[in-house]
Amino acid sequence: MINAYAPGDDGGLSEQERALIARRARVLGPSYRLFYEHPVHVVRGEGVWLYGPGGEAYLDVYNNVAVTGHCHPHVVAAIAGQAALLNTHTRYLNEIIVNFAERLVAKLPDEISQVMFACTGSEANDLALRVARAHTGGTGVIVTETAYHGVTQAIAELSPSLGAGVPLGAHVRTAPAPRAVGDVGRGFADGVRSALADMQRTGVKPAALLVDTVFSSDGVFAEPKGFLAEAVAAARAAGAIFIADEVQAGYGRLGEAFFGFQRHGLVPDLVTMGKPMGAGHPLAAVAGRPEVLEKFGRASRYFNTFGGNPVSCAAGMAVLDVIEAENLIGNALRVGQSMRAAIAALGSAAIVDVRGAGLFIGVELTDADAAARVVNGMRERRVLISATGPRANVLKVRPPLVFGMEHAEIFIDALSAELAHL
Amino acid sequence: MINAYAPGDDGGLSEQERALIARRARVLGPSYRLFYEHPVHVVRGEGVWLYGPGGEAYLDVYNNVAVTGHCHPHVVAAIAGQAALLNTHTRYLNEIIVNFAERLVAKLPDEISQVMFACTGSEANDLALRVARAHTGGTGVIVTETAYHGVTQAIAELSPSLGAGVPLGAHVRTAPAPRAVGDVGRGFADGVRSALADMQRTGVKPAALLVDTVFSSDGVFAEPKGFLAEAVAAARAAGAIFIADEVQAGYGRLGEAFFGFQRHGLVPDLVTMGKPMGAGHPLAAVAGRPEVLEKFGRASRYFNTFGGNPVSCAAGMAVLDVIEAENLIGNALRVGQSMRAAIAALGSAAIVDVRGAGLFIGVELTDADAAARVVNGMRERRVLISATGPRANVLKVRPPLVFGMEHAEIFIDALSAELAHL
Repeated sequence: MINAYAPGDDGGLSEQERALIARRARVLGPSYRLFYEHPVHVVRGEGVWLYGPGGEAYLDVYNNVAVTGHCHPHVVAAIAGQAALLNTHTRYLNEIIVNFAERLVAKLPDEISQVMFACTGSEANDLALRVARAHTGGTGVIVTETAYHGVTQAIAELSPSLGAGVPLGAHVRTAPAPRAVGDVGRGFADGVRSALADMQRTGVKPAALLVDTVFSSDGVFAEPKGFLAEAVAAARAAGAIFIADEVQAGYGRLGEAFFGFQRHGLVPDLVTMGKPMGAGHPLAAVAGRPEVLEKFGRASRYFNTFGGNPVSCAAGMAVLDVIEAENLIGNALRVGQSMRAAIAALGSAAIVDVRGAGLFIGVELTDADAAARVVNGMRERRVLISATGPRANVLKVRPPLVFGMEHAEIFIDALSAELAHL
Repeated sequence: MINAYAPGDDGGLSEQERALIARRARVLGPSYRLFYEHPVHVVRGEGVWLYGPGGEAYLDVYNNVAVTGHCHPHVVAAIAGQAALLNTHTRYLNEIIVNFAERLVAKLPDEISQVMFACTGSEANDLALRVARAHTGGTGVIVTETAYHGVTQAIAELSPSLGAGVPLGAHVRTAPAPRAVGDVGRGFADGVRSALADMQRTGVKPAALLVDTVFSSDGVFAEPKGFLAEAVAAARAAGAIFIADEVQAGYGRLGEAFFGFQRHGLVPDLVTMGKPMGAGHPLAAVAGRPEVLEKFGRASRYFNTFGGNPVSCAAGMAVLDVIEAENLIGNALRVGQSMRAAIAALGSAAIVDVRGAGLFIGVELTDADAAARVVNGMRERRVLISATGPRANVLKVRPPLVFGMEHAEIFIDALSAELAHL
């Protein structure tokens, strides 16, 4: 994994932290990882800040879940209030789920008018896959070469970024990530067409093209707007549907629209969302065109015990309240543009490219070693980012959307200092 | 689905409720179902009571998620307090997850010493399946004929209770549910041995025997204690591991031990749990033997964004606090025994068998029609239960564990009146 603590490396840890890591290793399964060469111990969060046990403040330039900032009082109050009032499930009549679904649907194109709730982005993508297969009668799925869509059995086998230890399914084909040169849309569509041709040759009927609309684990590709359209048309011509994975790109992060696909002028068949929906409360959803959801709905009941429960819906509505009231989409656009310009203006020889949209920024460095040194150096300056991409050389900059110009300055100062160290 | 509202049936609904159902149908996917011929509209919950918009009180004899009673103040305070303090994820150091994991592990046999957190029982079973396949190198799974284990793609295809619209996987074999006659253990093990023989004949290498230890969707089978042991031994002899699905049976509901498998004198290889863990907060887990988790942990990182986050762990610890402080396991045993005796003493000709353990009770009636009439009749008396089993003829009685003798009396009175009506 990119940016993982190597167990046994005690550099910089207090005795108390080493003891905590030892207890962790005893009782948590061996799949668990910690971030950074020197893990970060946090006990409190507020806005864009995380705090360690001694009160030390870390600037959070990484966490996309806490979209409204850590522990936003409006979200906390909504969760606390509803938890004290009622928390059942979707098989009793209750207004909350309907109110929330209507608000979500209002954020989507008119064609996408129905929602199903789950608890995690993995569950949302897994459900979307089941719906796609029911609707198309196919099984084949096209994803990008370093895609990540989740951790269920069915979704892990179409998430190549999980590595060679997790084999891809026999019905899965990959397309190269967009290349930030030449005709981006044509190049990406060519990869998708090759994957479709390979499916046809091997007797796999296509079900879906599944794309994270900001290509996060592929290294962050957002420009030019509209480049996704040709690939989506190719997939649809072959009988596949288009699933926009908005778990990372959605909820205003890209700064111009609520969802990433909207920057590409597309109307997906299904849209999945998760991480920021409840600002930390486990909440996810699949939205779709009724005619695409119909066959699955007829053949299968789908009951997710906690999905869409009253507290989840209250959390989800509070997050929408804050995004609207605090104009977080406008903030993402403004602060993100300024940050990308400031990063480029650093003029570092280590920077190959500065990409992204809004407050999802990818800074491609010359190599993984440089990225690791910058990520870990900034962590020592108490500024938290990470790295991504197939070569682990792209800085992943993705703060809560309440990130202001004053926070951007702190980030730029720390980045500048670490780039100067390389 | 058993006990579902038929859309269009307006019997007993207010105009406001009919309008709410119409809005629901517009914005929620068509897989959603409501309970009862006359759906129940709830706006508030407290202890074993749910309340409608006019203040009408429903006795909840069905919801196993609200194990500590609806909106238990200690659980609500834990969620509210932690949500206001910090809610990140497992890749930062934080004591809460370690404290919670240690408390969970202390409830388990010594051999099972590691935990991995997820958000739903479906995710827990899906992860257990991935671990089982990594550990054994096999793919085959044996489940019971009417099993339900969850809704991910991989778990739905081994959940025959979802019906013919959701085909079983080619690597899945079913064993008949236990029969409450003769040598129960021998009979059940014979079915598992047949399934294993069929796997061998068809070249499917066994990975796991996956069993809900109270056989909820099969119709509720808990006796005699120990009957599961022979089947588990047969599965292990064929190279499969034993996964105890404790999503329904666990957390003290069966009244003698914390987990259902403990009544059978077994130590599973993996244990999955969910529903009651957070009393409504989305929280689930897989616990396992380190040697079983090891290979998966080496090959695959597993990161569940919300799984084991600080608020989930705070909710989970608060639920354990209440179960211990209020002696809910002892209550389940005492009240459950009394209820089963009182049901049997009704002497109704419609009752074929009264089964279960603790506060998980199955009342087998002569046929599905009788069960539907009792379930819906009791609903009109504002006493909430449901039905289960392959023939939909088993009343499912499964209240919050704070259910007292005074509540049992109300339940018995309503059941008695409805049985007399048949």
